[in-house]
Order: sequence, then C-alpha cells, then structure tokens
Amino acid sequence: MLQLKAATFGVLMGVLSASLSAAPSPITDTQKDTAEQLIETALNSKLGYDIVTSLTTEVGPRLGGSEAEKRARDWGADLGKELGFDKVTIEEFSMPFWDRGHLHIALTSPYQQELYGTALGGAAPSKSEVNADVVYFRDIHALTEVKDGELQGKIAFVDGDAMVKSQTGAGYGQANQRRRIGWQHAQRGGASALVVRSVGSDSHRFPHTGMMSKNDDKWAEIPVIAISNPDADHLRRLYRADKPLALSLHSESKWKGEVNSGNVVMDIVGSEKPEEIVLIGGHLDSWDLGTGAVDDGAGIAITTAAAALIAKLPTRPKRTIRVVMFGAEEVGLLGAFAYAKQHEANLANHVLATESDFGAQTIWQLVSNVNPEATILVDEIAKILSPLGIIRGAADVVGGGPDIIPLAAKGVPTIRLNQNGRDYFDLHHTPDDTLDKINPDELAQNIAAYAASIYLLADTEIDLKSTK
Amino acid sequence: MLQLKAATFGVLMGVLSASLSAAPSPITDTQKDTAEQLIETALNSKLGYDIVTSLTTEVGPRLGGSEAEKRARDWGADLGKELGFDKVTIEEFSMPFWDRGHLHIALTSPYQQELYGTALGGAAPSKSEVNADVVYFRDIHALTEVKDGELQGKIAFVDGDAMVKSQTGAGYGQANQRRRIGWQHAQRGGASALVVRSVGSDSHRFPHTGMMSKNDDKWAEIPVIAISNPDADHLRRLYRADKPLALSLHSESKWKGEVNSGNVVMDIVGSEKPEEIVLIGGHLDSWDLGTGAVDDGAGIAITTAAAALIAKLPTRPKRTIRVVMFGAEEVGLLGAFAYAKQHEANLANHVLATESDFGAQTIWQLVSNVNPEATILVDEIAKILSPLGIIRGAADVVGGGPDIIPLAAKGVPTIRLNQNGRDYFDLHHTPDDTLDKINPDELAQNIAAYAASIYLLADTEIDLKSTK
Repeated sequence: MLQLKAATFGVLMGVLSASLSAAPSPITDTQKDTAEQLIETALNSKLGYDIVTSLTTEVGPRLGGSEAEKRARDWGADLGKELGFDKVTIEEFSMPFWDRGHLHIALTSPYQQELYGTALGGAAPSKSEVNADVVYFRDIHALTEVKDGELQGKIAFVDGDAMVKSQTGAGYGQANQRRRIGWQHAQRGGASALVVRSVGSDSHRFPHTGMMSKNDDKWAEIPVIAISNPDADHLRRLYRADKPLALSLHSESKWKGEVNSGNVVMDIVGSEKPEEIVLIGGHLDSWDLGTGAVDDGAGIAITTAAAALIAKLPTRPKRTIRVVMFGAEEVGLLGAFAYAKQHEANLANHVLATESDFGAQTIWQLVSNVNPEATILVDEIAKILSPLGIIRGAADVVGGGPDIIPLAAKGVPTIRLNQNGRDYFDLHHTPDDTLDKINPDELAQNIAAYAASIYLLADTEIDLKSTK
Repeated sequence: MLQLKAATFGVLMGVLSASLSAAPSPITDTQKDTAEQLIETALNSKLGYDIVTSLTTEVGPRLGGSEAEKRARDWGADLGKELGFDKVTIEEFSMPFWDRGHLHIALTSPYQQELYGTALGGAAPSKSEVNADVVYFRDIHALTEVKDGELQGKIAFVDGDAMVKSQTGAGYGQANQRRRIGWQHAQRGGASALVVRSVGSDSHRFPHTGMMSKNDDKWAEIPVIAISNPDADHLRRLYRADKPLALSLHSESKWKGEVNSGNVVMDIVGSEKPEEIVLIGGHLDSWDLGTGAVDDGAGIAITTAAAALIAKLPTRPKRTIRVVMFGAEEVGLLGAFAYAKQHEANLANHVLATESDFGAQTIWQLVSNVNPEATILVDEIAKILSPLGIIRGAADVVGGGPDIIPLAAKGVPTIRLNQNGRDYFDLHHTPDDTLDKINPDELAQNIAAYAASIYLLADTEIDLKSTK
C-alpha cells in the first residue's frame, strides 16, 4: 500500500511539476533576487518605525480639515523629499469641517454616575443640557421599528454587543449599523438624543468614535453619542433589573463650515513606463482622540518606507510607484474622492492600487483583483512572500482599501495585503490608538511585504489592467 | 548509579514519611471533610459573582465619604442580613472629603493636543487656568534634588517608567513614590503644578489616580495630576527631540470639609468561643473613576460569600467570623484606623485578620504570621488548598492587607491569600476597573480558598495568637 501510494504520489508530483514547468515564471531571476533583497533590507530597517514615530510625536492627532492635518501634509511632503521621491505634490481640496467640542454624559437614574462617551462624527450639538428618560433598544433592528414621534422627550439607547474579535475584521460592517444609521430612526421617533453602544471589540472604558452616514444628503439634527462597552453593559444590567434609566448629556459637536484638506502625492518615476502608475498609500488624517498610530500612521509608514526602499535600488522599476497620503479619510473618504476626481482623465494609467489601512500587525494574506492573465504573477509574488508567513488568498477581491474604493469603482486593478486585525478594533477610533500599540518587528514585516510585491508589480512586463 | 540513586531516594522518602507521620495533624477528619465540601460548594456557586455584580451595578463608584459610599453601606448591611449573618452593624466615623471636580490638561507646545490626566487624591485646585513651560525630570529622584524656588512659574513633569508587571505587585511601592511625595519637592521648588507619569503597568490612555502622602500633616497646595503612560511617553519623546514643552491645565479638585463614612461589621457568631474573632474583609469604598469591581468589590464579594457559605453549615464554627466592609480605604485607610480605634479594648480577642484587596485573579499563595505553634495548622491548611493551585509561602509575613495594617501593628496575627496580581495594575484606580474584568471562575476559586481556610482557622482548637 505504501509503495503504491508513494508511486501514485510520484506520478502526481510529476504531473504537477510538468504543469508548473510548462508555464514560465512571470518573474525573472533578477527581479526575484531584488525582491528578496528588499525583504531582507526591510526586515532590518527601522525606517518605517521612525516614520510613524515622527508622525505621531511631531504632529499627533490630525482630524480631517484641521490645522494639524495641514501640518501633517507639510510633514509628509518634507519626508517625501528627504527620502528621495522624484516628485512630491500637495493636492488640496475643500471639505466641510466637523468639530467634536466638549461632551458630558452621565447616568442620573437610578443614581448619579459619569459615563464615558464620545460624539459620533456628523452629530449635532445639544441645544442645552438634555435630561431625559431612556428608552432601551436591544439592537439596531429594534430601533428601526420605532414609530414616528414615539420617542418624543426621550433619549434612545441602542445596545447591541461588543464586536466579535476576528482576524479579518468581519463583524465591523454589521456592528457599525447602529453608529451609521441609528440616528435616522431616533430622530424620526422624535428622540432628544441617541446613545449607542460603541463599535469595538475591547472592554476598555473608551468608546470608539467614527462617522455616521448621511440620510437624504443630511446629517443628524440631534446629539449622537457612543458609550464604551463597559458602560453599555452597565445600562443593560440596570435595564434588566427593571431600574428606570435616565441620562443627562450636553454635547458641543457641530459642523463649522468649509475648510481645506489635501492629499500628498509622491512619485518614484518609472524607468520605462513612467506614465503607468502603481498607486499605494494610507491616510494621513486620524481621528482626534488618539495620535492615529495604528489608524493610519502605520499605513503611511508602511507604504512610504516600502517605496523609499525601492527608490534606493540602482535602477527605478519600469512603472511609476506613487505613494498617496490621503487626506480626510475618516470623515468620508474625502481625499479618496478628491484624488479620483482630480486624476479622472488619467485613471486609465493607474494599473494597480492598494492601501494599507488595517493596522500594523503581521500581514497574513494577499488577495487580488487584476486581469486574469496577470493573476499568475500575483500567485508568484505570494510565493516570494511566503517566508514572511503570507498566504495567497482569492483572486477576485475587489478593492484595495477604503481610499481605493473610488479607483476600484472605475476599474483600477487592486491587490490587498491583509494584516491580522484581531486586536484592531480594540484600538480603532479611540484615544488608545497611540505609538506604543505598534510592534516594530511586525511593522517591518509589513514593509517587507509591500516593498517586494510593489516592486514586482511595478517592474513586470505583464499587463495588469487590460482584460483584452 | 541509577540503582544507588533510587535507593538513596527511597531512604530519604522513608525518613520524610516517618517525620511527617510523627506529628498528628491539627485538623480533624471532620474539619477536613467540611473544608473540602466548602471548596466544592464555592467552586459551584455564583454567589460571589452575584455580589460583585450587584455592588458595581446597583451602587457603582463609591468614593470614601460620598453619598454613594453611604448607599454602599446600606447595600452591605442589607446583604449581610439577607445572607444570614447573625449580627450586622454599621459603625460610622468622621472624615475629610476630597472631591475630584473637573480637570482639563493639554499640551500647548510644540502644538495643541489634549492629554489624558487625572488629579491625584489630596491635590489642590488651580487658582485659574495654568499655562506654563514644563521642566522635565526623568524620575522622582531627579525632582528631589531641585533647589528651593527653582521651578517658579513652571510646571514640573516627573517621568519614570511604566510599572513592571509582576505576580506579586512588586514595583508598586517604588513606582508610586512620584505620586506620593513628588508634590512636596515641586511645591518647594515653587512650581505652579506637578504632573507625573501615572503609576500603572498598562499602555491604555487612562491615568491611574490614587492618594498622595501628607507632609508635616499638610496636603499639597498645588494641582497634582497623573497623565497616562502613552501621554508620558509622548512628552518624553518630544523632550528628547528638544521640543520646548508647555502645558495648559485647570483642575477643580479640592477638600470639602468633614463628612461621615463607616464600616459595615457582620458577624457569624462562634458556637464555642464567640468572643474570639477571625476577621476577614475588603474595602467597600472605591475610587470614583471606575465602578470598583476589582478594587475592591472583589474583596467584598470573596469574603462575604466565603463567610455566607460557612454560615450555612449545620453548626457555626467555634470562633466568631467577622466580615468587615471597610470604608474610606482609598483615601488613607480611614475605615481601618476607625475600626482599630473603636475596637481598641477588644483587639486582644482578634485572633486572626486578613483582607482580600488585590483583585480577583486566582490565589496562588498562602502566607502567614501566626504564633509559631500555630504555623503547623497553616501548613496543613495549605495542603487542603493545594488542589486549588495554591502553594504555601512564608510564615513570617506580617499584615493581611491594607486595612489590616492597624490591627497587625497591635499584634493581631494574620494570614494572606495572595492573588495573582499581574494584570492588577492595568486596572487599579482607573475608569477601566469595571465588572467585565472579573472572571467568575477565578472569583469562585478565591471564595473556595477563603471559605476553607477561614472555616479551619475559626474552628481549630489551636491558639493562633498566644506566643506563650
């Protein structure tokens, strides 16, 4: 039996080898050597960690449209020049500015206790202190069934559950419905304010902020506040013990008119096809609560460092590598839409796009959406990345990150290097998003993966885009 | 060689067995059976978790001297009666009340950024907004060397390091020197305020509060504020990058005069020696930031549940078991000193005392300080606890917990069941000290250990106290 099995295995291997050897690798030996050298260099480089340290320390929090975000753009442009990018441009755009202001929220019945809350992006201020009884909703589905006017004079509280921890971040889309659309129903019900369980997987007392969705192109006209998981647990326990709940809150968050933001665009110009662009990047803005280390100082550091390592090669890759530090991502992908619009005429030359915007834990998977003939190239890239612990995922995953959405929608091919996001939603959009949460070795693994794959994609002869 | 070793080992074992069997066990078979039944019952009981859930949910934060602490005392007394304690008394005492009020602290140079700070207990308010340059001190030792008046018009910042994580909590005493005595030197130097790195082992953005020490019976006359570890890291990085640091702060914390606090004293009266008291307990007050689940709702739950399980035995143990829910521990062991004073005439009848005030992770060690003749009993108790993963520690460890200090100083024998405190200083004195941080199974292990050991100590014929 063993003999037979071995023989069968040998035959299978033979077939497999034949099949493998039938298709010549789309990566040359020189390219492979260069990619492997980039990995080695990246793993031993402190560049990425220095970049995220500098951004979080010297700029700090940088809300889309703020003066701090402007400082971040200047920081980014200076960095690009220092690191040897061939062209560095700041491309400005206009945007409405939402400011958090001061918030106070406390339990007043069954007894007085301060709660830990944060206004959600786009929320209106309270006209004065709101003191009201609470109507409890077990989840967002329960709130959507509220009758018009039923919540008059009340505060709606939408519970839910702490986000499930998952490597892929699955569960975020579902959990953040209470953050996204809750206000429409609370407002329709006539509530004076909406309070929701924060969208996060942690049990810390910091609630997670984040943008709400517009409805009919309008923002909420009431205060909308997330409270931390432990505080939401607390309200749930009191509700279940039949205690009458009441809250007092005052929020100053509001829209403050039109301001400027911008994207920092930095090119390593291609040696043979300079007009063809492989776009990588992260978003430069952060929420105002933390210093935006994980979201998305990491992405800025990973992609900038990867490109800077490629820029040090004796010869530029064939295509242009463009790092975009997107502005105002958190507040509605405003930099991404501005970029897509400002480069509309040239989108056909964007042969690939990807963004790093899921923290700095190790990358474990490479997914793609390039033309079928180019998929073999991504397969081969995955083999080169495999010593980094990265596996090949699906070849039909559209979109390379939040800021790539407008480009992907226009048909730009994408890849995505997926970080392990198991702890991401412990930190995401909280004051805890600070530099100490980044592991320099994991960050270096990210940069190694980006440097090798982006180099190969920029230097290949293969047409990534054409579907023929 | 192997043969010889085995033979030697056998001889040694023989000697050891002979020596063990020579001393009769101080624990009867019936006592042992009862202790083991108590362990079994405790491990399968939800009582302790229900108690800490009720305290943190229905009372919440309960600062020493506050109206909430008064509610906690009523809650405790009601609980004691409900659980079948034979006597339940609230023993009031008077104390000065310190109130936190509102705090605002922000970095203003090299750029504007909100910091996460908390006033330290006993601190004075700022007269108005303080805006000043920062003088950086690497640690408390550096600050103690400041010359009188040298800090005029400045804010002193004392850095240091995040607390080392350790099972025993070693490192707290050293780290909290900056919290305890820093103000004396900052004030002597003429500083407008003192800011210190929070005393905690975590990297969360919540600073840890805690009481300062008096100096010459006086409290600080300046604001004293702890900032979170990530914020302290941030200031350190900016300082090392030669950025001029300036802060803006305003704190309302202040002393508000004399109020009442109290201890809840609950007895299970002994069947043969009711006048002899085995005292166990925890502290009922908490800091105002969290809901005091780990510090020290856990201790209240563990000791009350352990005693309540013993109260259900068919016969009361020989000695009285007294549970004391101490008041106002956090603000200077005020309940402990009040108890020692109010029971001064009767302290000789306190044959043993211990407190649970180190969270609710598993107990791993039993230490003691009883009379030498009774040490063998504690050794035997440790054997009965060993299936719970508990080992016997030293027999010369004076003090059974913070609130036991005044009793131990008067010669009351003590034991201590040491919890694993590795994560304790991630939560201690922060808003994150909430119910979700308690693992019900670990809490049950604590209760099992307390129930068995306290029962055996209360029922033994051995004199725990007399040194003869």
